Amino acid sequence: MRGAVIHGPRDIRFEERESPRIIQPTDAIIRMSATCVCGSDLWSYRGISQVNGPTPIGHEYCGIVEEVGTAVTSTKPGQFVIGSFFASDNTCPHCQLGYHTSCQHRELVGGAQAPMLRVPLADGTLVATPELPSKDLIPSLLSLSDVMGTGWFAADAADVKRGKTVAVVGDGAVGLLGVLSAKQMGAERIIAMSRHEARQKLAREFGATDIVTERDEQGVARIKELTNGIGADSVLECVGTQQSMIQAIRATRPGGHVSYVGVPHGVELKGADLFYRHVHLHGGPAPVRRYLPELIRLAWNRKINPGKVFDLTLPLEQVAEGYRAMDERRAIKALLRP
Amino acid sequence: MRGAVIHGPRDIRFEERESPRIIQPTDAIIRMSATCVCGSDLWSYRGISQVNGPTPIGHEYCGIVEEVGTAVTSTKPGQFVIGSFFASDNTCPHCQLGYHTSCQHRELVGGAQAPMLRVPLADGTLVATPELPSKDLIPSLLSLSDVMGTGWFAADAADVKRGKTVAVVGDGAVGLLGVLSAKQMGAERIIAMSRHEARQKLAREFGATDIVTERDEQGVARIKELTNGIGADSVLECVGTQQSMIQAIRATRPGGHVSYVGVPHGVELKGADLFYRHVHLHGGPAPVRRYLPELIRLAWNRKINPGKVFDLTLPLEQVAEGYRAMDERRAIKALLRP
Repeated sequence: MRGAVIHGPRDIRFEERESPRIIQPTDAIIRMSATCVCGSDLWSYRGISQVNGPTPIGHEYCGIVEEVGTAVTSTKPGQFVIGSFFASDNTCPHCQLGYHTSCQHRELVGGAQAPMLRVPLADGTLVATPELPSKDLIPSLLSLSDVMGTGWFAADAADVKRGKTVAVVGDGAVGLLGVLSAKQMGAERIIAMSRHEARQKLAREFGATDIVTERDEQGVARIKELTNGIGADSVLECVGTQQSMIQAIRATRPGGHVSYVGVPHGVELKGADLFYRHVHLHGGPAPVRRYLPELIRLAWNRKINPGKVFDLTLPLEQVAEGYRAMDERRAIKALLRP
Repeated sequence: MRGAVIHGPRDIRFEERESPRIIQPTDAIIRMSATCVCGSDLWSYRGISQVNGPTPIGHEYCGIVEEVGTAVTSTKPGQFVIGSFFASDNTCPHCQLGYHTSCQHRELVGGAQAPMLRVPLADGTLVATPELPSKDLIPSLLSLSDVMGTGWFAADAADVKRGKTVAVVGDGAVGLLGVLSAKQMGAERIIAMSRHEARQKLAREFGATDIVTERDEQGVARIKELTNGIGADSVLECVGTQQSMIQAIRATRPGGHVSYVGVPHGVELKGADLFYRHVHLHGGPAPVRRYLPELIRLAWNRKINPGKVFDLTLPLEQVAEGYRAMDERRAIKALLRP
């Protein structure tokens, strides 16, 4: 089969790769219905994370189960399934407490920008839809594999609740879906930080009540202004840089909650700063698996439409253009059809 | 009057100071029943925090109201009162949400190692006991002014709940009272980290079920061993050094909670480390005022006896010996009687 391989910075090739096959008896093979490019793929695309030799890339997926290993019992060929970027057993103590991305047997799912994919720990990782979905549902279901689950975790980890004031730092797909999640969880006021018109529009559509275009100290000052000098109850940090993290912490009221879901790159926090700001801090790789049943139900019943973050659809062989469009911020998120 | 003044590292003098008087109409003057030396006083005693010229010292207090300013309405002369080291108005948005130590009008209360003390924002800061207390209750009531309230906040901020496994880093008065607090909140297992026999004994008395004498990686490994490799649900960091903070974070299970209540000195946290550890982090100067009514009730009804942390009682004029004894770890905490 042919799939995406990253060779180095800005070098994505669509080329022949070995077709995946069952290796462990707990594996499943999926025929991809759709896959996509993630903001976190851009860290290696931009050369910020190192690439050691040609590596199959992509970690977002949904599709039809083609084959399962002999130990797989709940996942069946023919089902439409969605899974997270970390495979998890769903039975260890960390999974039982909802932290599937810290599963004692977790395994990264890689190489998903391809027509076929091997998913380890299939029973613990994959969640099936009630029936085969209609085609128009595919983008929303695909988003649950990472960005929607991550946006939801961001809102949950920042303790978003009915009536609260929420600010979202970052207008990528995760930030925008953090807005959608906050709206679903009943936030009264949702401040989206964005200076990009198309993203501002989608943020408003997802439930943002205010847009802040300022950044850094000015951005913090604007949020303070919008909240009578108090700060937001919950701030979702959806970028992963020092700048965005500091901005998030400073925009939060004392006793408020900051979540962070973008892999931190070069972030260092001074203990004494955190101490006197009195914020709660929680984040990490989103335990998407925890939320899949609930999010599938919401998407299936068309209560949410997170698929709207895909503003570019390409045939899989044009995967390199998907990366370019996202790198240049011409697209929020590129969906790839095998 | 004569009170304690710090002149520099290891230089505490009991000397003539100006008697406090009402400056703002919201002030109260208290005649001290007892005061004490705090672990945080040792930062400047040891020269780690800088002292700029002779400074009256001490911030823990309880006693009888002697005089109030014209704007004070709820605090009355003759009452026995306790207050926090930060005066707070108890009405601003931060106070209303329970973060009195981030009060918009907060003011440090200083110079409490003296027979008389001025407390600003008396109505918002001071809480009275139901009646004048009997003498044996004084140590416990005094502890509510800081260390007991701080230990309680540490347990609360680490989300201690019925049935949980808790670890406490630090065997100072705050750590020991963190143990007592965790016990009160229903923790099933409480692991105290201490290599000091008298402190281990008090920890057990307060509710510790296990003692860990190892430190750093060995200490973390021991806690993992005691929790089937999972880590503790809640870890209370009651020291404030890089070493203790890292130890606390590593001893926590993914999704667990770390609280930190000692002023961090030189603590730096790497974002990526925190990210993959999946912990919740919350701390800061304990909003003691939030807990005073509840803690006064518990102490008054003799449900808790936090005064046990005072293992040395001295006349106030021997304040310098109180510092020495604590610095050399001969005493857990020194109570001073004017």
